This record gives sequence, C-alpha cells and structure tokens, in this order.
Amino acid sequence: MNSESPIALDAMGGDYGHAVVVPAALQVLEELPALRLVLVGDRAVLESALAGVAGAVRARLEIRHASERVEMDDLPSHALRVKKDSSMRVAVNLVKDAEAQACVSAGNTGALMAISRFVLKTLPGVDRPAITSALPCADGHTYMLDLGANVDCTARQLFQFAVMGSALVRAVDNNSAPRVGLLNIGEEENKGNEQVKEAAHLLAASPLNYIGFVEGGDVYAGVADVVVCDGFVGNVALKTSEGVAKFIVQNVRREFSRNLFTRLVGFAALPALKGLKAKIDPRRYNGASLLGLQGIVIKSHGGADAFAFANAIRIATLEVAKAVPDKIRDGLAGLLVERRAG
Amino acid sequence: MNSESPIALDAMGGDYGHAVVVPAALQVLEELPALRLVLVGDRAVLESALAGVAGAVRARLEIRHASERVEMDDLPSHALRVKKDSSMRVAVNLVKDAEAQACVSAGNTGALMAISRFVLKTLPGVDRPAITSALPCADGHTYMLDLGANVDCTARQLFQFAVMGSALVRAVDNNSAPRVGLLNIGEEENKGNEQVKEAAHLLAASPLNYIGFVEGGDVYAGVADVVVCDGFVGNVALKTSEGVAKFIVQNVRREFSRNLFTRLVGFAALPALKGLKAKIDPRRYNGASLLGLQGIVIKSHGGADAFAFANAIRIATLEVAKAVPDKIRDGLAGLLVERRAG
Repeated sequence: MNSESPIALDAMGGDYGHAVVVPAALQVLEELPALRLVLVGDRAVLESALAGVAGAVRARLEIRHASERVEMDDLPSHALRVKKDSSMRVAVNLVKDAEAQACVSAGNTGALMAISRFVLKTLPGVDRPAITSALPCADGHTYMLDLGANVDCTARQLFQFAVMGSALVRAVDNNSAPRVGLLNIGEEENKGNEQVKEAAHLLAASPLNYIGFVEGGDVYAGVADVVVCDGFVGNVALKTSEGVAKFIVQNVRREFSRNLFTRLVGFAALPALKGLKAKIDPRRYNGASLLGLQGIVIKSHGGADAFAFANAIRIATLEVAKAVPDKIRDGLAGLLVERRAG
Repeated sequence: MNSESPIALDAMGGDYGHAVVVPAALQVLEELPALRLVLVGDRAVLESALAGVAGAVRARLEIRHASERVEMDDLPSHALRVKKDSSMRVAVNLVKDAEAQACVSAGNTGALMAISRFVLKTLPGVDRPAITSALPCADGHTYMLDLGANVDCTARQLFQFAVMGSALVRAVDNNSAPRVGLLNIGEEENKGNEQVKEAAHLLAASPLNYIGFVEGGDVYAGVADVVVCDGFVGNVALKTSEGVAKFIVQNVRREFSRNLFTRLVGFAALPALKGLKAKIDPRRYNGASLLGLQGIVIKSHGGADAFAFANAIRIATLEVAKAVPDKIRDGLAGLLVERRAG
C-alpha cells in the first residue's frame, strides 16, 4: 500500500463515534507500520481521546476538525445539503481532494451514499453505486451486491453490479475468473421478474464468468464468488441471514442451559462453538464497499465495536493497495470496447 | 374436523411420489381416527403400495386413478393445458367438486398454483393467491407471505396478503389480533420501494393490527405474527434462511469432528443439539398454504420425506377444521363493507 496519503476515518459516525473509531484506529496502526490515518471530527474531543498515545503511533495519526455530525436518522438530503461541515462530508472531501486514499464511516448509510455520489461522482458507465460485502460461505466467502443502496434496479444496473463485483473479486481475492450468479427464485429460465430475465441475457452475452441463476440457498453454499441482486432483495437476504444466525445461537445457548449436565457439556463444547462463532461473526465481515465511485468509501455497521471497525479499516487498506476503483473502471471500459468492436 | 369428505393427496407428485406419500398418509391416518384420505395416482402402483395395510386404516383410504403426472420441470401452462388427467389436476378437481375438503401436493409449485387458480378460482377481492408458511421464531412461529407465487406485487396485492395472512393466523392460532408487519429495508417511513410505501398507507388505514415496517432481521425475532412481502423477496428470504441454517449445522459438525476430545464433547452435546435441530428442522414446518383460493390447497416441499409430508397433511386437516377459506372471505368482505361505510 502506498504510504503517501492516509486513510480518512469519520470519527464521529455510527452509534459510538470516537469511542469506537479511536481504539480501532490505534489497533490497525499497530498492525500496519506504513499506514497513516486521519481522524475527522471534533478536534478537542479527538485530542483528548488521543492523550497518552505513544509517539510512534501518534505520528501516523492526524486530526482534521469538523464541526458537525450526521445523525443516524438524518435524511440523506439534509445531511448532503445542510451539514456541509459534518465529519462524514469532510472525510469524503479528503478523498476527492486526494488528501486521503479512502474513507471509512460507520454513519448513516443513505447519507454516506448521497454524499459520496455527490462529492466523488460515479465511474464512467455506472448509473448508481452499489453496496457490497463479503459473506461467509462453505469455501471462503461470497460478495453479494447490491445490499440496499438501490431498491429498484434495471437489468442494466444489475449487469453493472456484476461487472463491479467481478472486478472487486479479481482485485482483492486474486481470482482471475470470479463466478457470477444472478439471484432468482428458481434456476429455470422462465423464473423471475423482467429485470432479472433481461439481466441474464446481458450477462450470458458478456465475457464475465456468468454461471446463471442462483437461489437464496446457494448464497452460503459457495457456488458463486459474486451474487447479484437488487438492493431490496439483497438487504432483506442479508438481514434475514443475520436474524437466523442470531436465532440459532440463542437457541444453542438455551439448550445448553437446561440443566447441570447440559451446562457442563456446554462448557466443554465452548472451544468448538467459539470456533464456529468466530467463523460466522458478523464483526469479522464488517466493512461494506460502496462500489462504482471515483474513490474508495467503506461503510462500517453503525453498531460496530472497535474489533469490527478495525476490520472496515483493513478493507479500506486492501482496496487502496489493489486500486479497486481503477480495476472497476477497466472492467467497465473493457466491456464498452468489446461492445463497440462486436 | 368434518369426517364426511376426505382430503385428497397427489400421490405421484414431488421427487419421490407414492414412496413418500403412502407412508405419510398411513402415519396420519393412525394419528387421526376420523380422517379419510384419497390417494390420487396410478391405481396399480398405489394398490401394490397399500398391500398388507391393516383393514381398519385401509377402510379410510380411497384410491382415485389418474393416468399422468406433472413433472418438476413442466411449465405451469403445459401442466394446466395438456396434462388434464395428472394426479395433481385430479386432486384439485376433487376439491372443486366437493369430493375432497382439501388437497396436498408435493409437485411443481408453479403448476399447482396455475391449476388451483384455474380450477378453484380466487376468493372475491383477491387478485392473486399467495403462498405462506409458518417459520420458527423466538416465541413460536411467524407466517410470511408471499413466498414465491408473485414476483411483482402491487400495493393492493400486498394489502390483500396482509388480510389473508391475518385471517389465517386468527383461524389457526386462536390469535384475535395478529401483528402484521410489512417487510422493508429500514423502519423509517422514507425507506423502501413505491409499492411498499403505498401498502403501508393502506395497512395503517385498515382495521388490521398493523405494526409498521419490519426488517429481515425481525422475521425470526418474533416481532410479528404475519410478515408481508412480494414473492421474489419472500422466496429469497426463505431460501437464504435455510441456507444459513444448513451452513451453521455443517460447521457445528465440522467443529465437533476436529479431534477425539471434540468428538466426545459433540457426542455428549448431541441431545441438546438435537433439541435445537428439531426446533429449526424445516421438515417440521413443511406444508405451505396457497391462500386466497376457493378451497384449501397445501404445497409440500418437493423433496419432502414421509415425516415432512405427514406434516403437510396435518396442516390441511387444521385448515379444514378451521374453515380457513371462509375466514379469509369474511376478512376481505369485512374490509369492503367498512370501506363502503367509511
């Protein structure tokens, strides 16, 4: 990773603001000795949070003052038009002005998307950015997009999501031919809505490694590296998954607490269950990418703790190192050239 | 339950046909001494499958011959127009002719829906039938609809789903004011697509116990008794849930098989894990209702085993006993009257 420019962190965003962002920043700075970070937010608050931090780490940490904060319930339009000195806006501005190579925020998703689109603009050939994140699956992980930025999508947008997701996986997973699946309610050609059917034709005619329709049950089976869907479906699928996992964990706990014997067994089973918990821990997968922008923006979960927020910072460093926006630009340009030639 | 008319079973449907349907039928007949069933399918095959069945049970079991079978990959239009003597079609015809009080099929969902709509017709005020099923949740179960019959839904259809789901829960769960939630990608009013926003207004103005938007994560948390969504979203959410549960079970198994110690612990933990498995076992929830028809039609999973198919038969007996279509008719009529009066 280029150590010239830092990564900007919206230090006031999310449910916990600096109380999570500062410890996460310190943790990742310890791990990555070439990394530099900019904390964007209330200077006095941040200075005080950094009191006592060792000089070597502190030297790689700047503070950039911002006088406002986007609230979790601010309308995106309000955050964009009125809160021009919010920590979120200033962090995104730093990316635009090439003073930062990426930014990470745990703030309001709609506001972050609106500000990022307005400030950074989309890449040529991208109608709307999409949100994507890695989800655990049988043999590693699967990227699903869109996860909620676009409630209604045209076939053309679904196709762009496939190109962007594929470029992301090629870049960050060193996978030269990511398998792209289109989420549908059956595998037969006659299934699905019009947008999905038309997107299937676009994908089949493209140079992407398109494997056809996949169903909800395939997402965690590892049959595809990229699963494409509209943001309404993707958001529901993601949150339902988290709900099921939570439901199962609660029930495991209840089963093991029935009586003394089951409590003892549960205690003995802890290491094994912890291994599983670590594997499916949403904190390990925290950090969703806003793809299709002229810059790198990572969205952390609003309720992320320092462990989870640190992961979002790591994703930002990886996307910087792999120049993800350039790869997406190339992916889209390649298709345009091919279509002109075809 | 009225013991006058039997329940018809499509004995050739699904992945296993009579090999599953016959043992399931025998099991439920043993449990419910007033129940009568009609097996619809190839008479010779069914006679031979019933050889050796005790007389008392056999006396409550008729066979109705059907010369054809709807295949899992038949197009619904083909099944409807060409296969007029399929076991599925004959079973639905029995309901129409009041020779059966309900029918159960594990066959092709699209074909079952097309045949049921054509033969039985929808109830007054229902544009399209919906598929619903109980899903396990924190304090019992939640009904979600639509689960895949309708890929694009208008606000009006979503509203009808809410009325039908609410009537179903009132009837079968003795719940006088089922909590109805509308599935969305956020709880704020400005979230979601146009159909969902408009349906929210219709629901808020209705006498239903409408609790507002719910998110994917709420489905298994037991916040609503009925969760309303379009069939694309519902189908993806359902199948994704099953995928997550399968993924977790596989990983639990893997964690416990790591070494001798974890295998021993796993063995000791088996009773507790079995309790959980029983709770989330999709077989226990097998049997989806096609709501909004002038008759009771239950769809079993195509890959159901006898344990699961027996559950689908039990759901049919329950809906017969509670006269679910009449309750839905009343629910819809009540709203029409109220609107005229309002």
